[in-house]
Amino acid sequence: MERVRVKALLVDTSNNAPVVLLEGDSNSKVMPIWIGQNEALAISLQLQGSEFERPLTHDLLKSVLDKLDQSLERVIIDDLSNKTYYATLVLQGPDGETLKIDSRPSDSIALALRTNSPIFVDEEIFQDVAMESPFDEEFEDEKGEEFEDFLEQKMDLRKFKDFTDDS
Amino acid sequence: MERVRVKALLVDTSNNAPVVLLEGDSNSKVMPIWIGQNEALAISLQLQGSEFERPLTHDLLKSVLDKLDQSLERVIIDDLSNKTYYATLVLQGPDGETLKIDSRPSDSIALALRTNSPIFVDEEIFQDVAMESPFDEEFEDEKGEEFEDFLEQKMDLRKFKDFTDDS
Repeated sequence: MERVRVKALLVDTSNNAPVVLLEGDSNSKVMPIWIGQNEALAISLQLQGSEFERPLTHDLLKSVLDKLDQSLERVIIDDLSNKTYYATLVLQGPDGETLKIDSRPSDSIALALRTNSPIFVDEEIFQDVAMESPFDEEFEDEKGEEFEDFLEQKMDLRKFKDFTDDS
Repeated sequence: MERVRVKALLVDTSNNAPVVLLEGDSNSKVMPIWIGQNEALAISLQLQGSEFERPLTHDLLKSVLDKLDQSLERVIIDDLSNKTYYATLVLQGPDGETLKIDSRPSDSIALALRTNSPIFVDEEIFQDVAMESPFDEEFEDEKGEEFEDFLEQKMDLRKFKDFTDDS
C-alpha cells in the first residue's frame, strides 16, 4: 500500500474534466484520477477550508458516520479496471470491528478530507500509473506562467489519459 | 405532519435553478423547494430509474446505512428559516432505536427516493407555502404547450421565490 495525500486539484484542459493529483508519501510521484465536477467541488471546498451553514452531501455522510459512532479508519484505492478506479471505505465501529464499503475514489477522498483519514493506493496500481510530480523546484520558479502552459509542458495529462484508457 | 411525494422536478427559468415540487398526500397542493444542481441530478436519476455501474454519492450514503443496519425511517422537512428549508433524517437501527440527523431537504429527498422512505413536511410550513398544483386536468389537455409557457401561466415560481425570500 502506498499512502497518498491530495497534492492538487487540476483541470484537464482537453475536456475540462477535474483531475485530483495524489502524491505518494514515500516518494514524489503523483497519480492523477479524473473525477466528476460535483465531487471536485466537494474536494475543493474542503481543501479551501470553506464552511457552509448547511451540510453538503459529503458533510451529511460524515454526520451519519459520527452519529453512528463509526470512524473512517482509511480509504483504499484498490482497483483499476476498464479505465475506472475503485475504492473501499474502511469504517471502524466502537468495538474496533471494521466494515468495508465500495465507493468511488472521488467520494472516498472527499470524505477522507473531512474526517482526516489516511488515503492509500494499492502498491501495484500506484507503481503502474504514478508519474514524476510536476510540482518540483523548477515549477516553483515559474509560478508566473499560465497554468495551461504548465500543464502542457510539465505533465501531459491527455497522454496519461490515453494510457489509462488503453489499460 | 403532511406526507408528501415528489411530484416533479422543474427548472425555474428566471435563474435556471432546479425546483423540486412536493405534493401533499391529503390534497393536491404542492410545495416547491429550490435545490442545487447536483442534488437535482441525484433526484432526477433516481426518478428516472437510471442505474450506474458505480455508486453515486447518495447511493454511497444508502450503502453506508445498509451496511450499518440502519433504515431511513422517514425524512421530515421541519423548518423554514431565513429562506432556507431544514430537514431531518430519522434513522432506525436494528433494535428500533432512532437517530436524527440534520440534513438539507435535497439530500434527504435524494436519499428517501433510494430507500423508499416516506417524506413528511411540518404541517404549518406546508399550509403556509403550498399552492394549488399546476398538474391539474386542464394541464393534461395542454401537454403540447411549451414548458416555459406552462410555468409562467400556471405557477409563477419567481413570485413564489419572492414570497419565501421575504419570509
